[in-house]
Amino acid sequence: MTTTPAPGLTAVLDTTRTLLEPALREAVATHLGPQMNRIARYHFGWSDAEGRPTGAWGGKMIRPNLALLSARAAGAEAEDGLPAAVAIELVHNFSLLHDDIMDGDETRRGRATAWTVFGVPGAVLAGDALVAAATCVLLAAPAAGARSATLAMTAATRRMIDGQAADSEFERREDVTLAECVRMAGDKTGALLGSACALGADLQGAERRLVERLEAFGEHIGLAFQLVDDLLGIWGESAQTGKQVGADLRVRKKSLPVVAALNAPGTDELRALYLRPEPLTEPDIRRVTTLVERAGGRDWAQNEADRQIAAAEECLTAVDLPDDVRRAFTEVAGFVVGRRL
Amino acid sequence: MTTTPAPGLTAVLDTTRTLLEPALREAVATHLGPQMNRIARYHFGWSDAEGRPTGAWGGKMIRPNLALLSARAAGAEAEDGLPAAVAIELVHNFSLLHDDIMDGDETRRGRATAWTVFGVPGAVLAGDALVAAATCVLLAAPAAGARSATLAMTAATRRMIDGQAADSEFERREDVTLAECVRMAGDKTGALLGSACALGADLQGAERRLVERLEAFGEHIGLAFQLVDDLLGIWGESAQTGKQVGADLRVRKKSLPVVAALNAPGTDELRALYLRPEPLTEPDIRRVTTLVERAGGRDWAQNEADRQIAAAEECLTAVDLPDDVRRAFTEVAGFVVGRRL
Repeated sequence: MTTTPAPGLTAVLDTTRTLLEPALREAVATHLGPQMNRIARYHFGWSDAEGRPTGAWGGKMIRPNLALLSARAAGAEAEDGLPAAVAIELVHNFSLLHDDIMDGDETRRGRATAWTVFGVPGAVLAGDALVAAATCVLLAAPAAGARSATLAMTAATRRMIDGQAADSEFERREDVTLAECVRMAGDKTGALLGSACALGADLQGAERRLVERLEAFGEHIGLAFQLVDDLLGIWGESAQTGKQVGADLRVRKKSLPVVAALNAPGTDELRALYLRPEPLTEPDIRRVTTLVERAGGRDWAQNEADRQIAAAEECLTAVDLPDDVRRAFTEVAGFVVGRRL
Repeated sequence: MTTTPAPGLTAVLDTTRTLLEPALREAVATHLGPQMNRIARYHFGWSDAEGRPTGAWGGKMIRPNLALLSARAAGAEAEDGLPAAVAIELVHNFSLLHDDIMDGDETRRGRATAWTVFGVPGAVLAGDALVAAATCVLLAAPAAGARSATLAMTAATRRMIDGQAADSEFERREDVTLAECVRMAGDKTGALLGSACALGADLQGAERRLVERLEAFGEHIGLAFQLVDDLLGIWGESAQTGKQVGADLRVRKKSLPVVAALNAPGTDELRALYLRPEPLTEPDIRRVTTLVERAGGRDWAQNEADRQIAAAEECLTAVDLPDDVRRAFTEVAGFVVGRRL
């Protein structure tokens, strides 16, 4: 996994930022009414709670950068991928707005979440408005693949919603299988990243084979990201994750390494500890950490992350791409999985 | 206004129910994951909270019936309008799911609302899933106007969201103008009804003039409906409205007759009473009712409703329609405005 930024990537992000920033701001200004506009601008970090411009340009813009690369993968200019880039970032931020409400999270990127500032109704509506804006931006794009791309993005959005719903259901179930958990992670995290990687090419009317390989690339990267995220949620240092050590275990998250361990043979002690209703003490959490590792949960997740990255690389090998586009895809993938962005 | 059901309309609704019910059930089964499916089926009234079939067929299906008529207006069969009918009903129910959360409403159609049964996160996600399903159903329809119709429906959805946002903002403002209030009602209620009336024709690739007239027809009917609803919210009998007399005044709703009155000259007493922070007593509510009427709010709203109905009828006069379609549109309009459905 990449641990230091490659120079190429910084250049890619710098170039695309000058394209993305005005396009995204214009989409928000054009497609949202005054109340929704204010909440969206706050959520993106462009304005403070009173509506005053912050001069900031928020977010990591991973997905829109992948969408611009995707247009270039199909032989078009990065600019041609802008409707795809804007749409996918609007959908991503719809999911953040609603997730923060559902999880009761009070901060994001070091700022108060939108629902804490504007209330739950305002933040629900703002999320709804971003999805509608995304559909309008992409479907109205003057490009051969507008309909195909919009269908694909909407299908990915549905999978993301289903993944989110499955994730909450798992919290209340004791019998989650590893296959169910992998599928949930693919839906929740993989689907939208896969869509981001394919959307720019799809919009250009690129051949199905290229679109499908790019989508599979993104989906593998998404799964690898989720596996690494789950590993960090148990064994990560606070400095690296910004969370307390063992944070995911404390809330008894059914993360991928835990579910792998719970489904391994001879894990009665782990099941008894993790699935009991009483809160876990600090010694309990250390014991759970050991038991998950001993049952093979850590090894499985690390091997699976490597396998997903290898599968992602194979997707790129299978298609013709301009050299710099191939390199940039690989670098963005490295950053996503390495949690550097 | 029609006060008894015309025989023609009942026939229309009976015929279309046999088309609509299986199509809507299939869309929910196909496009929603298992968790979302369960919540949607409960919300539609098809299942109880445990997922057991109720045998019921919920909802008034006004919008999908208008969408099927709209396909016939373009010379197609009602069946050809099914993707439009299903999509518009999914969008309508997305708005109900989210509105119930935002308004904190605990019952709908005599049953506990979805968020009270499945929690806020489940109901937020289920609403999100219905919008995505609606987009997929309409955009994937094998019809010349799939892209145009999906763009129109999404634009109407955005207006509905903006209208909802404006409505909540008005609760906190003292200076709402009548023009703003009419615009809000057009967005909140008119846009989706207008879309329903145009969507079936749009999907068939009908000429723009027909699509636009049908859309304007529905929007006028939507505004008339809102005006009548607001009149009933002040002067309606409980038996007719299912609400307490003066219900809208008690919560100080900035409804159309009230805003008309607040913006009339010489309404200092009304402004002082209605805009003060203290709760209104029963004698206060009776006094506000008198003052709104005296300031012309009731007359204005009644005249405006009549004007909107006349404008709606003109839209139908301006286009060529099969006789039975024209009659059915007029009858559905009468029911919507007469609050019979």
